[in-house]
Amino acid sequence: MEHRWTIAAIQMRVSPHKEENLIQAEAAIAEAARQGADIVCLPELFLGPYFCQVEDHAWFDLAEPIPGPSEARLAQAARNHRVVVIGSLFEKRLPGIYHNTVTVHDRDGRLLGIYRKMHIPDDPLYLEKFYFTPGDTGFRVFRTGPAVVGPLICWDQWFPEAARLTALQGAEILFYPTAIGWHPKEKALWGTAQHDAWETVMRGHAITNGVYLCAVNRVGIEVLSGDGLEFWGGSFICDPFGRILRKASHEREEILLAECDRRLLEEVRRHWPFLRDRRIDAYADLTRRAIDPSPSANHGCSPS
Amino acid sequence: MEHRWTIAAIQMRVSPHKEENLIQAEAAIAEAARQGADIVCLPELFLGPYFCQVEDHAWFDLAEPIPGPSEARLAQAARNHRVVVIGSLFEKRLPGIYHNTVTVHDRDGRLLGIYRKMHIPDDPLYLEKFYFTPGDTGFRVFRTGPAVVGPLICWDQWFPEAARLTALQGAEILFYPTAIGWHPKEKALWGTAQHDAWETVMRGHAITNGVYLCAVNRVGIEVLSGDGLEFWGGSFICDPFGRILRKASHEREEILLAECDRRLLEEVRRHWPFLRDRRIDAYADLTRRAIDPSPSANHGCSPS
Repeated sequence: MEHRWTIAAIQMRVSPHKEENLIQAEAAIAEAARQGADIVCLPELFLGPYFCQVEDHAWFDLAEPIPGPSEARLAQAARNHRVVVIGSLFEKRLPGIYHNTVTVHDRDGRLLGIYRKMHIPDDPLYLEKFYFTPGDTGFRVFRTGPAVVGPLICWDQWFPEAARLTALQGAEILFYPTAIGWHPKEKALWGTAQHDAWETVMRGHAITNGVYLCAVNRVGIEVLSGDGLEFWGGSFICDPFGRILRKASHEREEILLAECDRRLLEEVRRHWPFLRDRRIDAYADLTRRAIDPSPSANHGCSPS
Repeated sequence: MEHRWTIAAIQMRVSPHKEENLIQAEAAIAEAARQGADIVCLPELFLGPYFCQVEDHAWFDLAEPIPGPSEARLAQAARNHRVVVIGSLFEKRLPGIYHNTVTVHDRDGRLLGIYRKMHIPDDPLYLEKFYFTPGDTGFRVFRTGPAVVGPLICWDQWFPEAARLTALQGAEILFYPTAIGWHPKEKALWGTAQHDAWETVMRGHAITNGVYLCAVNRVGIEVLSGDGLEFWGGSFICDPFGRILRKASHEREEILLAECDRRLLEEVRRHWPFLRDRRIDAYADLTRRAIDPSPSANHGCSPS
């Protein structure tokens, strides 16, 4: 492995037509590679509109097996351009079992593996629990040619546990293919705070874990229900100190490139050695849903 | 409990004299109460200089038992002004066992309990592992009159596990008494990024857990070794959306007040229900130091 590698985030608008989106993604992968990218990441479910705005059984027709036809196209793009490709597909695993799944292809086109979204949201216009069976892959890393990558997906970004478990396996960079946007009616009141919270939380993961991080969102307004969603773009790449290296606009399609350096990751972790000091003897209750008050006393001790 | 409560962060400079610092803290508690505070939080180890710049056995003389004389003064201040007081003391538990400890006194002056710093740093000028035995209290909350508070201490702020385990017990607000500053020689190159990372990580804890958060730092330059440390102030209070409500300067003593509202906490968690979706079935490895690659395969699956 070299000390440095270049990553590219493909911030794109999607059309209603799968083949159009696939062609666009292939072109973006080619262009990113031409500009020097070693690893390219696409947005969440880039092959079509964000259908989770509605509960409609017909959308299951979009799903594909992995390996499968779209996966093969991503493999071909990786091989043709000698880049790692992190894709995001609606996976049909069995009739009745569908997943929101990331694919990781190495530079030779080989499918290194998949990650199935572990945290599934269900909120107005993000009705993912209807479509996606929660992932059973656990959190994973993949040793690609240029770097060890840890893929996570959208809603996962709100869970520090996911980032931590991926980093503890040696991830050098976390990738978050994403589809997040504003409800048009909420945008004026909450829009800035929502976007800022989204970015802040992920920068926090980069800092607490000492890793690079890349969030890749879509742009554009898609109306499948009500006023639809305005996807807020804002894809970004930050370093292990949480400093944003590159950041995309809220509305334009963009290819965002940034160079990462393994030596900076090493330096940051030497100076702020959080991983050294984790109190693993005291973390067992993280596997509990909530920690109810003990029946005795006042939830504190009385050290008298 | 009322829906709303007001908290105060006492950003202060310390003198070499314990009694002076105690008198100053008592005056600040009185003033904060006069301005309407229900809960007042002091900076980490506010009774003296940040002695962890050096390893000198004489500093152990500063430590006190809890309950003990300084604890009694904090109790008295709480009772006199009818405010919850979150203090920070160098605790002598037994000869050879010292802790970096938070005290929580309710408005009637009763000591609800203590929290002993769980994550202990050891870096140049922050030589805490020499002085402080790692805490054995675990993470805790205290049901005070106005609100459920979760005290954590300085280095804890870099560990999302600490914030999570405190929030899962019902904390409505996390308090972080802190003593953090710049190495004067690093400030030009790293200062902005260090301060920004510090603030970002804690805002991230507020967001991922849907809690209020209050960080209380000291100010001033203290030289016990080399060029000493320039404590960077910047105490702040943010809401469960990570929005900063109040923020102090980098160099002045200040009493920072902010009103918190339990209804906002409820609203934020209803709209972004992260706690609902935690994958507690997949978090067991958070108790591991690192997750080494399995001997088989390529760290991913090969779903062929």
